[in-house]
Amino acid sequence: MLREFASDLRHMQDNADGQTAAFAMVGKGDLMMVYFRATLAELQEAQRDFGNLDLAAYLEPVGDYTSVVELGLYESSVKTFKALTEKGLAPHTEDWDAAIKETLARQAEAMAPRLFPAIPDRKYICFYPMDRLRGEQKNWFTVPIEERARMMHDHGMVGRRYADSVKQIITGSIGTDDWEWGVDLFADDPTVFKRLIYEMRFDEVSAVYAKFGKFFVGVQCKPEDVEKSLFG
Amino acid sequence: MLREFASDLRHMQDNADGQTAAFAMVGKGDLMMVYFRATLAELQEAQRDFGNLDLAAYLEPVGDYTSVVELGLYESSVKTFKALTEKGLAPHTEDWDAAIKETLARQAEAMAPRLFPAIPDRKYICFYPMDRLRGEQKNWFTVPIEERARMMHDHGMVGRRYADSVKQIITGSIGTDDWEWGVDLFADDPTVFKRLIYEMRFDEVSAVYAKFGKFFVGVQCKPEDVEKSLFG
Amino acid sequence: MLREFASDLRHMQDNADGQTAAFAMVGKGDLMMVYFRATLAELQEAQRDFGNLDLAAYLEPVGDYTSVVELGLYESSVKTFKALTEKGLAPHTEDWDAAIKETLARQAEAMAPRLFPAIPDRKYICFYPMDRLRGEQKNWFTVPIEERARMMHDHGMVGRRYADSVKQIITGSIGTDDWEWGVDLFADDPTVFKRLIYEMRFDEVSAVYAKFGKFFVGVQCKPEDVEKSLFG
Amino acid sequence: MLREFASDLRHMQDNADGQTAAFAMVGKGDLMMVYFRATLAELQEAQRDFGNLDLAAYLEPVGDYTSVVELGLYESSVKTFKALTEKGLAPHTEDWDAAIKETLARQAEAMAPRLFPAIPDRKYICFYPMDRLRGEQKNWFTVPIEERARMMHDHGMVGRRYADSVKQIITGSIGTDDWEWGVDLFADDPTVFKRLIYEMRFDEVSAVYAKFGKFFVGVQCKPEDVEKSLFG
Amino acid sequence: MLREFASDLRHMQDNADGQTAAFAMVGKGDLMMVYFRATLAELQEAQRDFGNLDLAAYLEPVGDYTSVVELGLYESSVKTFKALTEKGLAPHTEDWDAAIKETLARQAEAMAPRLFPAIPDRKYICFYPMDRLRGEQKNWFTVPIEERARMMHDHGMVGRRYADSVKQIITGSIGTDDWEWGVDLFADDPTVFKRLIYEMRFDEVSAVYAKFGKFFVGVQCKPEDVEKSLFG
Repeated sequence: MLREFASDLRHMQDNADGQTAAFAMVGKGDLMMVYFRATLAELQEAQRDFGNLDLAAYLEPVGDYTSVVELGLYESSVKTFKALTEKGLAPHTEDWDAAIKETLARQAEAMAPRLFPAIPDRKYICFYPMDRLRGEQKNWFTVPIEERARMMHDHGMVGRRYADSVKQIITGSIGTDDWEWGVDLFADDPTVFKRLIYEMRFDEVSAVYAKFGKFFVGVQCKPEDVEKSLFG
Repeated sequence: MLREFASDLRHMQDNADGQTAAFAMVGKGDLMMVYFRATLAELQEAQRDFGNLDLAAYLEPVGDYTSVVELGLYESSVKTFKALTEKGLAPHTEDWDAAIKETLARQAEAMAPRLFPAIPDRKYICFYPMDRLRGEQKNWFTVPIEERARMMHDHGMVGRRYADSVKQIITGSIGTDDWEWGVDLFADDPTVFKRLIYEMRFDEVSAVYAKFGKFFVGVQCKPEDVEKSLFG
Repeated sequence: MLREFASDLRHMQDNADGQTAAFAMVGKGDLMMVYFRATLAELQEAQRDFGNLDLAAYLEPVGDYTSVVELGLYESSVKTFKALTEKGLAPHTEDWDAAIKETLARQAEAMAPRLFPAIPDRKYICFYPMDRLRGEQKNWFTVPIEERARMMHDHGMVGRRYADSVKQIITGSIGTDDWEWGVDLFADDPTVFKRLIYEMRFDEVSAVYAKFGKFFVGVQCKPEDVEKSLFG
Repeated sequence: MLREFASDLRHMQDNADGQTAAFAMVGKGDLMMVYFRATLAELQEAQRDFGNLDLAAYLEPVGDYTSVVELGLYESSVKTFKALTEKGLAPHTEDWDAAIKETLARQAEAMAPRLFPAIPDRKYICFYPMDRLRGEQKNWFTVPIEERARMMHDHGMVGRRYADSVKQIITGSIGTDDWEWGVDLFADDPTVFKRLIYEMRFDEVSAVYAKFGKFFVGVQCKPEDVEKSLFG
Repeated sequence: MLREFASDLRHMQDNADGQTAAFAMVGKGDLMMVYFRATLAELQEAQRDFGNLDLAAYLEPVGDYTSVVELGLYESSVKTFKALTEKGLAPHTEDWDAAIKETLARQAEAMAPRLFPAIPDRKYICFYPMDRLRGEQKNWFTVPIEERARMMHDHGMVGRRYADSVKQIITGSIGTDDWEWGVDLFADDPTVFKRLIYEMRFDEVSAVYAKFGKFFVGVQCKPEDVEKSLFG
């Protein structure tokens, strides 16, 4: 059963159509699968194929999360909006929409590698979903974009100081799952998850406007580790 | 088992008595059934018949939602109320009630196709329930109707810009399920769900007054796709 | 199995010791039993007897609610308190308590039929539990009784306009279940549940002070319908 | 199986080492066991022994609560603190601590019967856990002790008026379970639970500072009733 | 089965690679395992090995918690920051980071025994997770560090008075589990859990800024107690 799973995992990892990784969980369950795919339909196929493994009959689902890799575009958006406004364009006019579309297409091309990332090959994963607060007094979605851009910039500065020791992939899940964003962190030393997130928790954007879901941590389980990781 | 289900699904889709569609879910479960029926009793029958399928013995319910297709009538309501008031009628008098009843009957006839819609034939579905906030300071249900109509109008303007790429069916579930409204979105490109809902989240009505439940996404599964979608 | 259940249901419905009805649920489960009994001990017996049915082995409990039929006495309470105060009586003195006791006994006798109602014979049921808000700023339990009586009066006026199309039984569950009140609505047209509750939601007492639990809807299932409703 | 349970229950009830009672539940499950023991270790043994019954294989746990019988000492604490302060003692000095210790020992001895109560032999039980509010504006734990003592005194006055018809045992569960207090009420007429708790809900301490958990009600099931109560 | 578990537990307790203890739970389940390990990977191995026991087939997981032993460094942090600032260093400059790193390394060495503690050999355990409040008005993460240090100091003073009767191990779980901190208390008299936590609840830092999760209590179960504790 584990050998079938290991072989299937190796097969998927050799497959150029998407990224797949397995993690032996520490708490909350035994196994976490991470699939990066180009479309939702391919994610559904990955889910279906996992269910067909013999191993699946011995596992009970404890949770899943569907999200889309996303780039932080606050600074470029503020710049683009300002430039278009200075040109005398009004939001949602035909010219404005064309300019936005053209800008996005240019960015998407330039940033394709970051939109279709590889799963970082680090020993540990930390995943958690999060929301921005929509409280009665503090409400992220009523804060002007320049303010939000400034807070996100400060927040990014903290992340940048940890860039060597932790790789992060931010995903957006408004419309695809129950929280607004999903955060994937990958590191060889898991205490860096704690240090990074603790330090960020005092940023204005996290301190005042972040709501966190459940946290999932795991140890990477390569095809050759499957038997040892899951059975011993 | 899957062939029985496929045949049953084809039979229901050929049946003029209601609309039925199946979706292979991405996360949260395997299969989502969508039934549009004229009465609650017919929904109960659809639920009962599904339970009689051989397939049902292999599935565990993870959730369901019962809701009634609903049209946004804020603008016409405000107009009607104003017109009746200008005629000197007072709310809940016999004349007022008769006038309202007559207006509603006229609207229901004119909008019957929108009240009994077909399930849009798009590749992806996104469903989520939502409430309007009844907080201690921000409370949708104490906002004057003209204000609510204005916010709903602005909100509708955003939806209209996405009308080509996403079909939405709004349903009301006060009295039939745990949230106040259910939103069904159908699109061929699922990233449009994310873009639409993200943009709307900054509308005043969503930013301040919306509470969202769980989000469910799936890939349409026509009778001829059943075996491939659910088994591979 | 279903025949045993149908026969048991018919037997209970012919039994003068209490009211019993079954509803085929639309969502959240398959079957909802409604028992009106004179004592909690008899409710426990009904629960025990249901568990002894063969059918019970095929069902899993998804919820239950225990509550006591209750009459809205705000107006008469305010009147009684005022009358006693005008007589110079102080709350919780012996004379006050005797007068209250005597008034309650008189009312209980006069309103016995409403305290021991029949289960209305309508096609659909809607059940939901609710609380009054005890927020930090808006708190029903710190509002003076005259204010509460006024809001309940306005609220009742809405219900009265729907009296023909929907029968409602209000029950109190402080001390018997997790919410403060349980609401049972019975109607032949289930859209009236939606219209009634939607309209009430804008009443001051609901808009500001109501918290709602889960909503359960079902189609009445008489003994002769059991086989068709639950099996088809 | 039921006879083994009945015999075990009788054996425990004849056992001087602790108090044990069984209740047939009305909703939320079938059976509630109440154990009064002198130590946590003995509670663990009671739990273990219950699990060894044949009956246990047919039951699924739906909840449990661990709490310590507690006396309301607000008035005496305020008096003691005042007396010590008047003597010129400062909190947490050696003399203060010795005086407090001596006072508590004296009280514990005087009130031993109330600290080790018998389970009242009434027909019905009502159990619920509760917290004191720690809201952002209303926070029980920042209210001065004199204010808290005054509110608890008023609250106790209500309970006292019901002393004949309902026996209450208050337990503290900070550190032993998820809520701060557990309330056990015992009465022959269960509507008194509703009347008592409803009246208390308007006390300042409950109206503003109480948060309630789930409510559990049951009918006492003596060894000789086991077969009839649980099987019929 | 229990003998295999007892033998495995004895083996782990003799193993110098980490600390392991078992507790027979009072409520919420039957058995709580506590593992202190140097790395997350070793925790995953402990979890995997437990799952391989015959006993595991008879247990269902009811919860787990992953956290990192942590020392309270508020006072030394405030001192260090002040010293560095007085030397003219600015946060996150190279010199500042080097000085912080050097200070932390020195502290880690000096406090190694407290970072890698033994599981205290007391009869009872009490475990609960907690958060600091991030409310709209009261928000721990926007309070200046000097204020937080002062509140933590006062809080520590209470703990210190209980140091003889209760051993506490504080762990941080930002990034490893759903709450921010985990608290482990060990005592021979479990009522001290209640007294300590109750007294602390009136500290400013707890009264205003603490949110508590579920509480778990258990009786230590040494290898030689396994059969008696879990079977009787």
